[in-house]
Amino acid sequence: MPVHEFKVEMTCTGCSGAVERVLKKLGDKVEDMTIDLEGKTVQIKSSLSSDELLAVLKKTGKETTYIGCKN
Amino acid sequence: MPVHEFKVEMTCTGCSGAVERVLKKLGDKVEDMTIDLEGKTVQIKSSLSSDELLAVLKKTGKETTYIGCKN
Repeated sequence: MPVHEFKVEMTCTGCSGAVERVLKKLGDKVEDMTIDLEGKTVQIKSSLSSDELLAVLKKTGKETTYIGCKN
Repeated sequence: MPVHEFKVEMTCTGCSGAVERVLKKLGDKVEDMTIDLEGKTVQIKSSLSSDELLAVLKKTGKETTYIGCKN
């Protein structure tokens, strides 16, 4: 399963917590996630496409861009 | 037009900015908004119902509850 990496403008634990909650709503579709608040990156191991994940992340209202796929 | 007030767990300007962006996506449906980061409240003058606005705010992944209607 691919790991998609995104840049997400997070500046506090409230921001990263919001991202985490939004991704957890996806349930089984997300196998694993790593949220790096300092580095402002989110890695998501998921069966969803990068476009689908980007749309979910953008729902948070945070500026988000796709970095790339790790696998 | 009614003003609906919500409690939104915002802890930094990144949080409040995210809330602002999500509400701005609603366009004409939101006539005015006041976001109080310190008080963790959001007032929205809108033709949308409180339930509809709550659903939009929850998309941010932040904990949100409805306080009440001012008009």
